[in-house]
Amino acid sequence: MEHSGQVLLELFVMFAAGKLLAEVFERLRQPGVAGELLAGVLLGPSLLAIINPSDLTRGLAEIGAIFLLFTVGLETKPRDLLAVGWTAVLVAILGVMLPFLAGFAYMRAASNSMVESIFVGAAMVATSVGITARVLADAGFLSTRMARVILGAAVLDDILGMIVLTVVSSISTGKINYVSLGVVTVEAIGFSLLVIFFGSGLVGRMRPAVARLRAQNSAFILSVILCLGLSLASVYIGMAAIIGAFLAGLALADHSEQWRLHLNAHPVSEFLSPFFFVLLGVQVNLRTFLQPGLAVMLVVVCLLAIVSKVIGCGLGSLRLGWKDALRIGVGMVPRGEVGLIVAAVGLQLHTISEGVYTVVIGMSLATTLVAPPLLKILMPKKNLLDGTAPHEAV
Amino acid sequence: MEHSGQVLLELFVMFAAGKLLAEVFERLRQPGVAGELLAGVLLGPSLLAIINPSDLTRGLAEIGAIFLLFTVGLETKPRDLLAVGWTAVLVAILGVMLPFLAGFAYMRAASNSMVESIFVGAAMVATSVGITARVLADAGFLSTRMARVILGAAVLDDILGMIVLTVVSSISTGKINYVSLGVVTVEAIGFSLLVIFFGSGLVGRMRPAVARLRAQNSAFILSVILCLGLSLASVYIGMAAIIGAFLAGLALADHSEQWRLHLNAHPVSEFLSPFFFVLLGVQVNLRTFLQPGLAVMLVVVCLLAIVSKVIGCGLGSLRLGWKDALRIGVGMVPRGEVGLIVAAVGLQLHTISEGVYTVVIGMSLATTLVAPPLLKILMPKKNLLDGTAPHEAV
Repeated sequence: MEHSGQVLLELFVMFAAGKLLAEVFERLRQPGVAGELLAGVLLGPSLLAIINPSDLTRGLAEIGAIFLLFTVGLETKPRDLLAVGWTAVLVAILGVMLPFLAGFAYMRAASNSMVESIFVGAAMVATSVGITARVLADAGFLSTRMARVILGAAVLDDILGMIVLTVVSSISTGKINYVSLGVVTVEAIGFSLLVIFFGSGLVGRMRPAVARLRAQNSAFILSVILCLGLSLASVYIGMAAIIGAFLAGLALADHSEQWRLHLNAHPVSEFLSPFFFVLLGVQVNLRTFLQPGLAVMLVVVCLLAIVSKVIGCGLGSLRLGWKDALRIGVGMVPRGEVGLIVAAVGLQLHTISEGVYTVVIGMSLATTLVAPPLLKILMPKKNLLDGTAPHEAV
Repeated sequence: MEHSGQVLLELFVMFAAGKLLAEVFERLRQPGVAGELLAGVLLGPSLLAIINPSDLTRGLAEIGAIFLLFTVGLETKPRDLLAVGWTAVLVAILGVMLPFLAGFAYMRAASNSMVESIFVGAAMVATSVGITARVLADAGFLSTRMARVILGAAVLDDILGMIVLTVVSSISTGKINYVSLGVVTVEAIGFSLLVIFFGSGLVGRMRPAVARLRAQNSAFILSVILCLGLSLASVYIGMAAIIGAFLAGLALADHSEQWRLHLNAHPVSEFLSPFFFVLLGVQVNLRTFLQPGLAVMLVVVCLLAIVSKVIGCGLGSLRLGWKDALRIGVGMVPRGEVGLIVAAVGLQLHTISEGVYTVVIGMSLATTLVAPPLLKILMPKKNLLDGTAPHEAV
């Protein structure tokens, strides 16, 4: 009973505080997700110290992120994603190269070690699509061309980020295994392309079998199994679980309306994803920023992370016009949990100092907090867009 | 990454195996929930040993049970529950007294200690409404008078069960504190009656405020906060969390259609509640049943648990006709996690032996597994009932 009460108290406080601040932010015309992040920072160890990350809250956060990306995938038809294919590829590649070079060059110029500089560069690479997806979804922009470019590039980004992390880890352990690196790269790209090209067709062929199932709401149950299964496959290949969840949603998107999948998946995501955003905030320890001398490095790295991503991704999508290019650039800014993972790996391998670790954490948080309001300001008026977006061709 | 993969694998296996066996059971015209329980037994430590209970799966199971009872509450209007009030009271009281006396008398006759006998009696008292609620919901019977009697009696049952457990724990520690016992009893009954009588009206008064909220789907978000909050309050008072969740659903039932609450809460329950049922099965260690001499005691206690509950609750509801009385009696049979809690407390206080602990676990499992198929057999034809049930008066 004691245990049950403690667990419920944590969940209640996280959910209620997150949603309260989300409502406050909405009233200030800011994105609700920023309020949830801030609620986490407030509840976390550095301020109120009410919530500590536990196995349960970490698990709920992960499932929350999985359902969020699954829901986003359900609203993204494969042919729409393929239509923006080459733009997304260009956005992803330039959006990985520029931040890496900027971070690496600055750290070397500031006389840090080669390995440490490479790690900071690597941490600045991968986009955390969860934050941007939530802002786009809340604003009702998921069906726009810009959103498709961002989502497509984010999938590629994660693959590229995985390759960079593997390379960097190999460097810090002294030896690069080109064979295993090649294998995981091929696996990740192959897996994503297979699902994007053949997923929807395979699901379509299973329709008669699904119709014969006896259990209630079987299509939703099966779609959840597919979502968890592809998330798991993603992790085994070496990508983030959320990429698999997004791909599962993509494979089911053409059938979502008939099977009422979005209608069923959306409430699950609404209940669970706040735990993801609040926990991102909880994991921030503000006290670590008090270390002397880190302030300058933090500010410079943050600015470089923002500017290099906006320029890199913006250049990649310039042919869509500078307005959409700017939106795409800003949409790719948040590093969120991906930067945190890279920092954690670096600390674990003893290749980066505590100070540099703190800077990377700060950069992840700052890029994550700054993007949603910027993106909201840059968004076109909803009513203008509604009429034109579906007919835009690339 | 390693950790994330392990967690996802467990969730995937639990969900997929539970739903696979649920489908198999549905095809054999058995209730799906029995399939999920069995999947847990198969995956658990005694057979395949793939799943071990963890903080995450236990937490998910608890939230799953909470959302299940919340959903059931959303389909139960307070005035319908009050209409069956006195019948439910009689069912609950007789359904607590008879099993306790039967268990206590048998254990004393078999020369067990006084305290041990009292514990076994206490473990046979409280009904686990989750199992029955799921069978009734799956069969579409939640709106019948019989279902309302069962749900009303189950809430009372939990209050009575809590009192019995408090008394029994006091006895085993040597001293009964009548004052604190009186306080918790009054709190539990007062809390339940307050929500049942005034909850719906209070929620109704908040409607204009809810309509002014900016966040998307605010009514559902608020209802989740209420559900978690009342579950937490329930635990603090000393009842099971699921009773608070049921009461929260009850308070919102009159507003569920307008706010689309059921439509939103149902998918969450569908995703999470399988973890509750599968975990109930996982917690069963079949090997403990191999202890010599326990077989007879186990069989007798199981039979007594079933027969005493059916007779007690049946007598309490005899005025509804013997058919409904029998259905109500069988519907109250599952002890599920409530019996498990009593057994765990007894073992922790060193007042019951490992053997008796095993018998109580076995009784909980047997009553939980036997009730769903029995209940399904006893159910009237759906099409006959549909026309008459809503117009029946008590």
